[in-house]
Amino acid sequence: MKAKIHIMLKNGVLDPQGKAVGHALASLGFDGVNEVRQGKYIEIDLAETDRAKAGGVVDRMCKTLLANTVIENYVIEFE
Amino acid sequence: MKAKIHIMLKNGVLDPQGKAVGHALASLGFDGVNEVRQGKYIEIDLAETDRAKAGGVVDRMCKTLLANTVIENYVIEFE
Repeated sequence: MKAKIHIMLKNGVLDPQGKAVGHALASLGFDGVNEVRQGKYIEIDLAETDRAKAGGVVDRMCKTLLANTVIENYVIEFE
Repeated sequence: MKAKIHIMLKNGVLDPQGKAVGHALASLGFDGVNEVRQGKYIEIDLAETDRAKAGGVVDRMCKTLLANTVIENYVIEFE
């Protein structure tokens, strides 16, 4: 089963990557851009087929390696 | 209106970030991981409220700045 994980900086945490993209878009002539935020997207293909078990495993993966929970939020979906 | 963009390396293009995450997970004792692929996730808050127009603008943003279409695919969603 495939886990899809979105990792974003928490609201209020400065997002320099997003700011850089926003400025680059403005300098290319794209106006009307209010805000840009950039995060990570990770797809993990798991051998596990039980959704509840996979959920627990992926949650531990996020907490121990993938996300810095001090400044980042993560959302896990399965397909 | 908010555009949500997923940018992933095309299938067949080596994904060293994903490979590194996979190896790190294995070394932390997570087994049963078949494959990891890592991409970018960008949220753009636009002043534009017309969905068709916004779609065209964001598509141009992807082609000119956000994605390297030689090796990357992108998917745009709106909310």
